[in-house]
Amino acid sequence: MPTFTNRLRAACDATQSLVCVGLDVNPEAMPIADVADFNRAIVNATSDLVCAYKPNLAFYEALGLPGLRALEATVTHIRQAAPHSIIIGDCKRGDIGSTATAYAAAMFNVWGFDAVTINPWGGLDTVAPWLADPERGAFVWCRGSNPGAADLQDLTVSDAGRPAEPVYLRLARQSNALAARGNLGLVVGATAPEQLVAVRAVCPDVPLLIPGVGAQGGDLAASVLNGVASDGRLAIINSSRGIIYASSGADYAAAARHAAANLRSAINGTLAEAGLGWR
Amino acid sequence: MPTFTNRLRAACDATQSLVCVGLDVNPEAMPIADVADFNRAIVNATSDLVCAYKPNLAFYEALGLPGLRALEATVTHIRQAAPHSIIIGDCKRGDIGSTATAYAAAMFNVWGFDAVTINPWGGLDTVAPWLADPERGAFVWCRGSNPGAADLQDLTVSDAGRPAEPVYLRLARQSNALAARGNLGLVVGATAPEQLVAVRAVCPDVPLLIPGVGAQGGDLAASVLNGVASDGRLAIINSSRGIIYASSGADYAAAARHAAANLRSAINGTLAEAGLGWR
Repeated sequence: MPTFTNRLRAACDATQSLVCVGLDVNPEAMPIADVADFNRAIVNATSDLVCAYKPNLAFYEALGLPGLRALEATVTHIRQAAPHSIIIGDCKRGDIGSTATAYAAAMFNVWGFDAVTINPWGGLDTVAPWLADPERGAFVWCRGSNPGAADLQDLTVSDAGRPAEPVYLRLARQSNALAARGNLGLVVGATAPEQLVAVRAVCPDVPLLIPGVGAQGGDLAASVLNGVASDGRLAIINSSRGIIYASSGADYAAAARHAAANLRSAINGTLAEAGLGWR
Repeated sequence: MPTFTNRLRAACDATQSLVCVGLDVNPEAMPIADVADFNRAIVNATSDLVCAYKPNLAFYEALGLPGLRALEATVTHIRQAAPHSIIIGDCKRGDIGSTATAYAAAMFNVWGFDAVTINPWGGLDTVAPWLADPERGAFVWCRGSNPGAADLQDLTVSDAGRPAEPVYLRLARQSNALAARGNLGLVVGATAPEQLVAVRAVCPDVPLLIPGVGAQGGDLAASVLNGVASDGRLAIINSSRGIIYASSGADYAAAARHAAANLRSAINGTLAEAGLGWR
């Protein structure tokens, strides 16, 4: 039985790609009205170029039950049109005890996601329920890509007998201790390059999900080089708006393909220059 | 236009109650199969005894789209059968920028909740989108009721020129600065009495939502006395399993009423002994 981390490696190898497409559907930005049709067109246009799709649940929930039915149709379509892909439910859920277990059941059993993003604020006993199945992954939100991420995540922790370090780095250490089953990852924003280096140093072998390279302005080459493991893998670079809204016209799917191909090429160029290219 | 805090005060005054009923539906524990029917019976049996209902979204999401339709029916019923009540969507959502805005639209516009619980790990810019409408409230998850809450929330932070203090208390100070519009609250677990005292000291005027007095074992009288503001109000005490699963038999609604009445009486007795009773 492959671990989630091995499943992610296989998805990247199948497309020689570290690109994840964020499916942040927004009717005001979409050139067509039907959410499921829009996603199907994006998936059809990009399936050979990317390792993962990441629907962000907020945007579906904001559309009510019809939005959730569109999410259901989207997941079904990805399974058919891109069977090699990992589907990450970007839900940032986090809660205690039986609530965490219920959220995990919703995301893994009801929605059928391969992986999720989770919010660790409640502590490690809120993370553990997400790791019960080694085939399903949980990316712990470690350091955000937003300015406010510094408010709590960058505070300096000082405890007797331990070196002073930021909260996000303490979390990375705590999380790494839960990664033995091969299904824990971390989310670290591309806009926080120093933090990305620090997290990779204490978590050499866990997958990193890196948002923030597109509209948010993170540096792509630095994110790739700082994010990957020593073998040049185990970092996936998410782009949402930069791919799915590459054009606001009727050519949106072709434009998405072009944008995904460009991102993949740029990443693979960086990897090749570092001697870590695909063989 | 009343602020959320004033709406909450009115809901408490209308029933002379600080009791919030957590609607954590679990088919394995429910004596009847239909989720909406179960909730309707609980609401009908308790509406004159409690100030608020708090459906926890995890348990509805775990049941798929039928669970969400039951949540919709539950909200509709509470509006009719308990129009004085506040409905708190216990969703612990938290994310950045446009995602936070989408989640707020989902919770306030789609579901129609009066208030939500939110997760502040992403920082203050992830909290702000929830506070746009002064009539709708957001309870920031400040200190959990679970053992793991200590992992991040109790870490001691020390920054140049500021006193060393736990992360949750720094967050309480940060949150208090956002409370001027009268619609920010905090969640602090009843199992953390010292933290409850500390939070109330730095946030004298914000509503506190206090879970953990039932199955989790928090001390009720201490939670009331430590949680309320100086006028004996602005703390609401949540009980979920202790009320809705008070009986596993056909008398579950009557048993829920009995449990809610007992909790209300115990709280009001504590308030009266402290000279803070209802007039």
